[in-house]
Amino acid sequence: MSLNTFGHLFRMTTWGESHGPALGCTVDGCPPGVALSEADLQPWLDLRKPGTSKFTTQRREADAVKILSGVFEGKTTGTSIQLMIENTDQRSKDYGDIAKAFRPGHADIAYHLKYGHRDYRGGGRSSARETAARVAAGGVARQVLAALVPDLKITGYMVQMGVKHIDRSRFDAGQIRENPFFCPDAVAAGEWADYLDELRLAHNSVGAVIEVVAEQVPAGLGAPLYGKLDSDLASAMMSINAVKAVEIGEGMASAALTGVENADEMRMGPDGVEFLSNHAGGILGGISTGQPVVCRFAVKPTSSILTPRQAVNAAGEEIDLITKGRHDPCVGIRAVPVGEAMMALVLLDHLLLDRAQTGGVRGRIG
Amino acid sequence: MSLNTFGHLFRMTTWGESHGPALGCTVDGCPPGVALSEADLQPWLDLRKPGTSKFTTQRREADAVKILSGVFEGKTTGTSIQLMIENTDQRSKDYGDIAKAFRPGHADIAYHLKYGHRDYRGGGRSSARETAARVAAGGVARQVLAALVPDLKITGYMVQMGVKHIDRSRFDAGQIRENPFFCPDAVAAGEWADYLDELRLAHNSVGAVIEVVAEQVPAGLGAPLYGKLDSDLASAMMSINAVKAVEIGEGMASAALTGVENADEMRMGPDGVEFLSNHAGGILGGISTGQPVVCRFAVKPTSSILTPRQAVNAAGEEIDLITKGRHDPCVGIRAVPVGEAMMALVLLDHLLLDRAQTGGVRGRIG
Amino acid sequence: MSLNTFGHLFRMTTWGESHGPALGCTVDGCPPGVALSEADLQPWLDLRKPGTSKFTTQRREADAVKILSGVFEGKTTGTSIQLMIENTDQRSKDYGDIAKAFRPGHADIAYHLKYGHRDYRGGGRSSARETAARVAAGGVARQVLAALVPDLKITGYMVQMGVKHIDRSRFDAGQIRENPFFCPDAVAAGEWADYLDELRLAHNSVGAVIEVVAEQVPAGLGAPLYGKLDSDLASAMMSINAVKAVEIGEGMASAALTGVENADEMRMGPDGVEFLSNHAGGILGGISTGQPVVCRFAVKPTSSILTPRQAVNAAGEEIDLITKGRHDPCVGIRAVPVGEAMMALVLLDHLLLDRAQTGGVRGRIG
Amino acid sequence: MSLNTFGHLFRMTTWGESHGPALGCTVDGCPPGVALSEADLQPWLDLRKPGTSKFTTQRREADAVKILSGVFEGKTTGTSIQLMIENTDQRSKDYGDIAKAFRPGHADIAYHLKYGHRDYRGGGRSSARETAARVAAGGVARQVLAALVPDLKITGYMVQMGVKHIDRSRFDAGQIRENPFFCPDAVAAGEWADYLDELRLAHNSVGAVIEVVAEQVPAGLGAPLYGKLDSDLASAMMSINAVKAVEIGEGMASAALTGVENADEMRMGPDGVEFLSNHAGGILGGISTGQPVVCRFAVKPTSSILTPRQAVNAAGEEIDLITKGRHDPCVGIRAVPVGEAMMALVLLDHLLLDRAQTGGVRGRIG
Repeated sequence: MSLNTFGHLFRMTTWGESHGPALGCTVDGCPPGVALSEADLQPWLDLRKPGTSKFTTQRREADAVKILSGVFEGKTTGTSIQLMIENTDQRSKDYGDIAKAFRPGHADIAYHLKYGHRDYRGGGRSSARETAARVAAGGVARQVLAALVPDLKITGYMVQMGVKHIDRSRFDAGQIRENPFFCPDAVAAGEWADYLDELRLAHNSVGAVIEVVAEQVPAGLGAPLYGKLDSDLASAMMSINAVKAVEIGEGMASAALTGVENADEMRMGPDGVEFLSNHAGGILGGISTGQPVVCRFAVKPTSSILTPRQAVNAAGEEIDLITKGRHDPCVGIRAVPVGEAMMALVLLDHLLLDRAQTGGVRGRIG
Repeated sequence: MSLNTFGHLFRMTTWGESHGPALGCTVDGCPPGVALSEADLQPWLDLRKPGTSKFTTQRREADAVKILSGVFEGKTTGTSIQLMIENTDQRSKDYGDIAKAFRPGHADIAYHLKYGHRDYRGGGRSSARETAARVAAGGVARQVLAALVPDLKITGYMVQMGVKHIDRSRFDAGQIRENPFFCPDAVAAGEWADYLDELRLAHNSVGAVIEVVAEQVPAGLGAPLYGKLDSDLASAMMSINAVKAVEIGEGMASAALTGVENADEMRMGPDGVEFLSNHAGGILGGISTGQPVVCRFAVKPTSSILTPRQAVNAAGEEIDLITKGRHDPCVGIRAVPVGEAMMALVLLDHLLLDRAQTGGVRGRIG
Repeated sequence: MSLNTFGHLFRMTTWGESHGPALGCTVDGCPPGVALSEADLQPWLDLRKPGTSKFTTQRREADAVKILSGVFEGKTTGTSIQLMIENTDQRSKDYGDIAKAFRPGHADIAYHLKYGHRDYRGGGRSSARETAARVAAGGVARQVLAALVPDLKITGYMVQMGVKHIDRSRFDAGQIRENPFFCPDAVAAGEWADYLDELRLAHNSVGAVIEVVAEQVPAGLGAPLYGKLDSDLASAMMSINAVKAVEIGEGMASAALTGVENADEMRMGPDGVEFLSNHAGGILGGISTGQPVVCRFAVKPTSSILTPRQAVNAAGEEIDLITKGRHDPCVGIRAVPVGEAMMALVLLDHLLLDRAQTGGVRGRIG
Repeated sequence: MSLNTFGHLFRMTTWGESHGPALGCTVDGCPPGVALSEADLQPWLDLRKPGTSKFTTQRREADAVKILSGVFEGKTTGTSIQLMIENTDQRSKDYGDIAKAFRPGHADIAYHLKYGHRDYRGGGRSSARETAARVAAGGVARQVLAALVPDLKITGYMVQMGVKHIDRSRFDAGQIRENPFFCPDAVAAGEWADYLDELRLAHNSVGAVIEVVAEQVPAGLGAPLYGKLDSDLASAMMSINAVKAVEIGEGMASAALTGVENADEMRMGPDGVEFLSNHAGGILGGISTGQPVVCRFAVKPTSSILTPRQAVNAAGEEIDLITKGRHDPCVGIRAVPVGEAMMALVLLDHLLLDRAQTGGVRGRIG
């Protein structure tokens, strides 16, 4: 779907700018009768909200979500759900300097060229603040998924910050919420803190890689050929601010494998087919197989930095630009809950699409 | 858009199976009055067609495209264009063995689980033969692009086969059509021939990385936030058979960069803004900037190989599976013209979307 | 959905011109495992095909439909179904006279203005021949409906030809296929034969009103607010060639009713709620209630007539135009099976949409 | 488009219930740089708002619209525009009686059957209060149309209330805003006042017919075959609460015409082709011809009346139902500005669609 709407059947339409009065989204296509309250959504927003550590922007936003429609007496009605988050800590004067200047690596110039007229304050519509709406919609998707597929579990975490990777042998899901980086490796998390401090104090920023895994995904989700589960995930993750690459399963590394290596061999287990590996990342032919769905995406470094960079402005003058304001030194950190939200949205959308076409009936094996 | 339709305004809807009587697509939303004949499309299909070297499947298909509607007296009418390619060299008996067995790493099992009932012959709908329809539709898009943006140029090539990369210092676009691999590095192409021969004779296959570059793309294409140019490219490329990752510009490598490194600095040149680098791959905030649009994707190795692999069948029996039939040892090779076609489709779609919203007017600099 | 695609989830994309080599459609979103063959579709096409009486065009077309994809071993696979009908009796020379002239009341001038370039032969894309593709797609929808809602029954018939109406007290569904007008009133059918003969010989044509009723429609179909069952029916019927009005239930007459009269009162019957009348035409708030869905549409008289009319041509010259060629004196007749097909498409589409959102669970009464 | 979104390119997504905290819509696809403020929208909302005469509901709502996004420094930015209207005069206790009862002729029972759970207060989502959002979005469309096609003019009015019609010989556009009925015939307006008073005091309600005419519509708007201008208008108008029929041009009456009568003959005038009549209502083959676009729709009588009617409730009990609360005795009155808004939305949507496909270039005559 185009423009500001995401999803085929379960859809969100987002609106709002970084420094406008509010932002939000309309969630459409939600099944009726699902328990939903603001308290169900707020925890997800709290994971993404700014100002929770020195490693994120110091803008202070409660990111309190309000449900304005589509829920009655604590349950969804099946009609469109409006979610609104008021902006409370805009400090637009920070942006006077860049009203007419284009930050290198930032959407500024692209919006200027396309639209002619833009809200430059805090990046306006191109700000990652928009992702608060995604997280809110993702929260609705999670409530519905919890009702329809109780075992399904979505986990996002950072596996690389700049040049520093986690050590997969130390992977501990219990660590993810214990450090400011959603890092599943406690040792790496400690190193990253020093690393990011150093970069931050040097007026620099850095990129990251996020991995999102969905377990207990029913087989059969995905609509070949242009609503494949993986192509929809690619679109979903690439639409997140600053994302430059998306991988499924082996991802780029699959290019270096042979067919013998890449084959996810199968045996029969007590509960049906068991795969001996998961190079495919849980998706074959665009359809989920029942294995964990594994998706990674790369987030480029924040383009708003205090180090001067060569730039131009709308008057066509060459300038050296320093970006003041309050910015994340590693915008990848707060992309973790956003990636989880997009995974939830895509999976629910395809669960409903599949229910429409097949009634959820699965082909038999054995 | 869902299922078998791709695109927002300029759309193709594809149909057909590997061993059915024919396959094709409907192209909708095409501007009227554009010169179009079968001869305009056939060269692109010839680039993708099988059997052109020992490095592709030995199935012999002329892949002759017929225009059944939407063109009158040599020009498009603005109505839906039907493109049909007849299958002529089906050899379905090759597939008797796998009618009820699931090749590891192949869509077989996923289609079985989702649909219960499938055309197993040659992979049926999941076959890469479907991409012939994309190349045909991409040919239509190229004709329209040539009329609307004459300088725009799309070039695809292979930059990695298995563990072997090209040497960018030897990059020569003139070489791309001079070897069976669409390889821009003549030395690498020679090495790849030996490498792939070896793998092929060892009953193995291998993955690849394709890069597609579009030059002279107008600034301003892309519809934030869920029809971003990069998210649509990601969806487009990920929808190609066997693709497991998509990168824009620096791609995964952007995670390891700092903000200082990643900034594409700008100066004023004789024709306006000039960027000093292109880490962004020509897209900022989901919108083209006028720089070359750079997209890469990884293709996994062909899953149909003659080396036995552990598998299961529909009866729930464990088997050792060898896949006979005629298969590409490196399916990435023929993905090159497909990637180009998808780039053409996405760019034209966004050119029309932008024309609708902005009338093609651009913000001024200077 | 826009342009040449109809439907939200169960979609058809049609293509082809009156005098091109073939026409057809792609049916997408079809559930898998449904029995389907050309023999299932042909009877519906035979109802619509030309040349079956002196009251329809004398063009001779077998309208033989071929299934080119999406069906394997007699059952749908869930992938896109391509249906093709070859044109065999084009007589394009009939149209030389009107290549550059615009028939009053015909799409000629509108296509000319919009597209500049058009296939004028037999009306090209604007020809009612396109409806053959709809009837074929409607046949697929009927097969699926028969599998999912066996009792559902769709019946179309003509209730008015020109100034002559049926007498509802003589309504006999058994008569519908017993006369060339799909007329449920045998007496009226006899009168219409004389009436139409007279008009035909006077080189004139006439309009009609078609009614399509669907019985045993499950309650709960329809997606407020912009995919209401009635708004989708209105769009569906208005898209048929020459249709100028669509009514649901009381239709235009509801304007003259009071609230007391219009209330469809309810009592409890042995099988649940019973309505004492059906002014609503089975739809309230855009959602089916379980009552028969009643839709009517008006078809204007054929614009291609042998009586000279004042017209202009592309050169801007004033002319008196007589339209030769083979035309239906009452194009409404053959619109009956088309209206049925559109009803089937809309109902199935909403059945699948509803299944996606609610799982088909209904609110309880009692 | 499905569910709560209307439009192909210029789209509105509406949300909100009659007695919730607020309602509104997101307008997407708006061209950038168009002057827009709340003051531009409010006059349209004031035309529709309740409580302006004794002939509409006595609920008092200011219907003050707020723009929450998509506009910066008084001009649209091309990003999604959020329009919000707070509800201030809910009196939900009025609805306690019908929480579990189904009003005859009302959406109550349909929503109950489909969704199981619904907001019954004031009709919840099925309330005509939703149309305030349409009028707001229509106001945005008008601003854009005024910028792109300054001469285009949309006029809606009531031509029939119950059994009473206007006299077309007394048609005076200047009267439309001079009476509480949007009636262009001052004599009829006077009669209607007495007529409706009588019905209202008799605890009854009545239907109406609305006509909406758009003048100076550019030729060439409409996307055959499933985004025809008339089929989109039909869908648009039929989606308005209580509408049961839609007519274009001659509408239902075209069935009674002969081809000779129905032909809109053409001559050349000083500014090009002139039509001698407009039976077609400005649309041929689904495409505008440049003549006035004429659309009519019938609104059924309000179903909420004080006269007892036989009904049932959720417990399956038979009841006699009187609907208290504040209701319009002729809901058709306030449908006039809604019909105008839908016309504006459809025309702008097709203007943008046409600009995308053809660039707005028209075929030449002469």
